[in-house]
Amino acid sequence: MDARAIQDEIGPENGCYGCGPENPDGLRLKTYWEGEETVSRFTPRPSFAAGPPDVLNGGIVATVIDCHGVCTAVASVYRLEGRPIGSEPRVWCVTASLAVKYLKPTPLDGELLLRGRVASVEGKKTRVAVSLWAAGVERAQGEVLAIRVR
Amino acid sequence: MDARAIQDEIGPENGCYGCGPENPDGLRLKTYWEGEETVSRFTPRPSFAAGPPDVLNGGIVATVIDCHGVCTAVASVYRLEGRPIGSEPRVWCVTASLAVKYLKPTPLDGELLLRGRVASVEGKKTRVAVSLWAAGVERAQGEVLAIRVR
Repeated sequence: MDARAIQDEIGPENGCYGCGPENPDGLRLKTYWEGEETVSRFTPRPSFAAGPPDVLNGGIVATVIDCHGVCTAVASVYRLEGRPIGSEPRVWCVTASLAVKYLKPTPLDGELLLRGRVASVEGKKTRVAVSLWAAGVERAQGEVLAIRVR
Repeated sequence: MDARAIQDEIGPENGCYGCGPENPDGLRLKTYWEGEETVSRFTPRPSFAAGPPDVLNGGIVATVIDCHGVCTAVASVYRLEGRPIGSEPRVWCVTASLAVKYLKPTPLDGELLLRGRVASVEGKKTRVAVSLWAAGVERAQGEVLAIRVR
């Protein structure tokens, strides 16, 4: 695992609510390469409930899948170009679409594990498949279509 | 427009981060019938940024689309059964899947408008199409597949 997260290398002025190091109120998701996969670990706030107080909100599930996916896409572009994350010219991607399947309720207490892998690359488009696990059980699957922008 | 929001009628103990009246830290989305459609109006917090500070985070877009969709599904079940929202036996639905297309950046300042309509009903499954608007422009489209649970 790399010492610094993708989000810490990506560049200045990332105030993203989900993963920006510079957003003091945000979730500050941190994503790392592990071989061909990316991983994030995230512990939800108690307020991030679904209807039942012990289940994680589906919107927050979508939020961390989105950030994990986009940051994986950005890191993948750098890797394919054979240069360090954050080197010039800087790469940024936006989410064109997000799809999440909720397989099982995600517990609100404890650490979540997100795993991502690049499913396809086509020009400026990178598709990332993301899987969310808690307590050793897969809870949700997502697909993020990220598009490189200037 | 009904005087009370769907979320205020749905029942006790809704601590949902996105729309639970009983979550003091949540977004407290409020959804209302307007004829055959449902509408929510929502003003984001300044911290809910995407990478750029003036654009709404895509995860928060997904969060409000999810809540708008599920609550529309719950209200639709009551309507189809010809009884008031919150009457016994109580109806609750969970999100089985969520898909969001991001059409244009959503500005972070100002009020957002969500519009929902029931796209299909099949047994316990209700599909809701949701459209998110800001400053008179459609910014995102979502589809929520909600499943009725006990």
